[in-house]
Amino acid sequence: MDFILFTIEALAIFASAYAGLIKAKRLDMDFVGLTTAAMATAFGGGTLRDILLDRSPLFWIEHYYYPVIVFAISGVSLILFRFNKELFRRRVLLIIDALGLGLYSAVGVGIALQLDTPVFPAVLIGVITATAGGVLRDILLNEVPEVFLKTTQLYVTCSFIGCWTYIGMVSFGIAHVPGLIVCILVTFITRVLAVKLDLSLPF
Amino acid sequence: MDFILFTIEALAIFASAYAGLIKAKRLDMDFVGLTTAAMATAFGGGTLRDILLDRSPLFWIEHYYYPVIVFAISGVSLILFRFNKELFRRRVLLIIDALGLGLYSAVGVGIALQLDTPVFPAVLIGVITATAGGVLRDILLNEVPEVFLKTTQLYVTCSFIGCWTYIGMVSFGIAHVPGLIVCILVTFITRVLAVKLDLSLPF
Amino acid sequence: MDFILFTIEALAIFASAYAGLIKAKRLDMDFVGLTTAAMATAFGGGTLRDILLDRSPLFWIEHYYYPVIVFAISGVSLILFRFNKELFRRRVLLIIDALGLGLYSAVGVGIALQLDTPVFPAVLIGVITATAGGVLRDILLNEVPEVFLKTTQLYVTCSFIGCWTYIGMVSFGIAHVPGLIVCILVTFITRVLAVKLDLSLPF
Repeated sequence: MDFILFTIEALAIFASAYAGLIKAKRLDMDFVGLTTAAMATAFGGGTLRDILLDRSPLFWIEHYYYPVIVFAISGVSLILFRFNKELFRRRVLLIIDALGLGLYSAVGVGIALQLDTPVFPAVLIGVITATAGGVLRDILLNEVPEVFLKTTQLYVTCSFIGCWTYIGMVSFGIAHVPGLIVCILVTFITRVLAVKLDLSLPF
Repeated sequence: MDFILFTIEALAIFASAYAGLIKAKRLDMDFVGLTTAAMATAFGGGTLRDILLDRSPLFWIEHYYYPVIVFAISGVSLILFRFNKELFRRRVLLIIDALGLGLYSAVGVGIALQLDTPVFPAVLIGVITATAGGVLRDILLNEVPEVFLKTTQLYVTCSFIGCWTYIGMVSFGIAHVPGLIVCILVTFITRVLAVKLDLSLPF
Repeated sequence: MDFILFTIEALAIFASAYAGLIKAKRLDMDFVGLTTAAMATAFGGGTLRDILLDRSPLFWIEHYYYPVIVFAISGVSLILFRFNKELFRRRVLLIIDALGLGLYSAVGVGIALQLDTPVFPAVLIGVITATAGGVLRDILLNEVPEVFLKTTQLYVTCSFIGCWTYIGMVSFGIAHVPGLIVCILVTFITRVLAVKLDLSLPF
């Protein structure tokens, strides 16, 4: 279980860092801005989760190579951005961002449940883990957080549905690992569908 | 004492959630924005207090029904907002918001003192508990925090005065419970008077 | 060592509070805004450091006279601002702000290392301690954080270089105290030079 959560978290970090880098590039920022956006998106949600659950040490202090890798990725992307416009393709960004959303939802709600958090707060912590990084990045850049924009399709909602799917499966006696995988898939698919079909909340 | 603090906190949460909902409605947000605004206003200040005082588990994880109730209230208010314009009345909002300010000031400074925090930081934590929720909501919505607007009448100041009244009473040997009640009343009354008489700091 | 860190922190707090007051004054805020800006700049970075490292109690709860002093300074500066325009001089602000940057970098990375944080996260915590106060202040005032502005000369970078100098010296067996002093000097000098020579990142 710990190894699964660890793997999901590692993937979530890299997917989120990538999404953060693309967003910062769009705003035409320098290396400090780029790295800050990547770090905030990649580690913001998980850090808030660890603080809310009073976990210590923080995951990026314990696994100290995570920030090293994200820092290195930021450097490499500076160069890649000059040569490869493909990185900007909207479709690639959507897929990777949706993947990060699913992965971080799963690891957030999974760790919360492991620490005996009651289910409703556990779902909230899953949603916060998945979305707080992007919100923090947007606040640091003084943008309206994307997830609250009227024009943004379902985002928080996808994470919310995914986390409840996991909780539902676990309460029906299904093991944690398949529950986490279904949580990732449900979040990912509803998010991609929401963008493709331009779905937003009717109210 | 614990039961009194618990009751004050429950009332503070509902008053703040209501104020958050009205603010989000004014900005014409969807259900995600509405719920986020309600949750941030209701739980933001208390969460920051628990983090600053290193209390664990957080109050909304321990009392897991709080977020459930605020979530339900957000849903109900979506419907109410369509039928009942009365909810918007400025006077009602002022009263409930001022009540939330007083209640959260009392519970913030009360809990800080219970944990042997020195008096000046305890007052700061009372003020932070009372105001951080609204500030967090405004930051999430990318608005200038209302409490810092020149046009806003005394707000932080009322909480500050209320908290010092409590500290003063306790140091003169008065029991905690009457101290907390006076703290709520002083904060509430100075806030309502400040709005009615349009008071703001002269400098 | 503890006494050295304590002294550096005290100096860092007053330098940062001063920088916060000047910034708030430029925005023509009232006493609440002024005090909030001073407190956020002076205590924001250190508070985030203590939360990330799970130190308890927070430094401004343990040393409760710090917020009292910053509060008093805010009051005094209200009066001084009316008589003494010299306080605004750009050169004085630059020197004191750069000093605050160096002092907080040193105390941040020093405390992180004392708690056995691995070096890369320790540097990040040094940089966060040094810069988060100003960022928090700017977010509270709904400004674009100064450190991310294209027009801002090297700032985060100076703290980053200073922290690495300290780490480098300590790994070469040099004692902590000279390492901290060099960290302060390197950060301070690179920052002042960056402004004087109008240096910014080339990418």
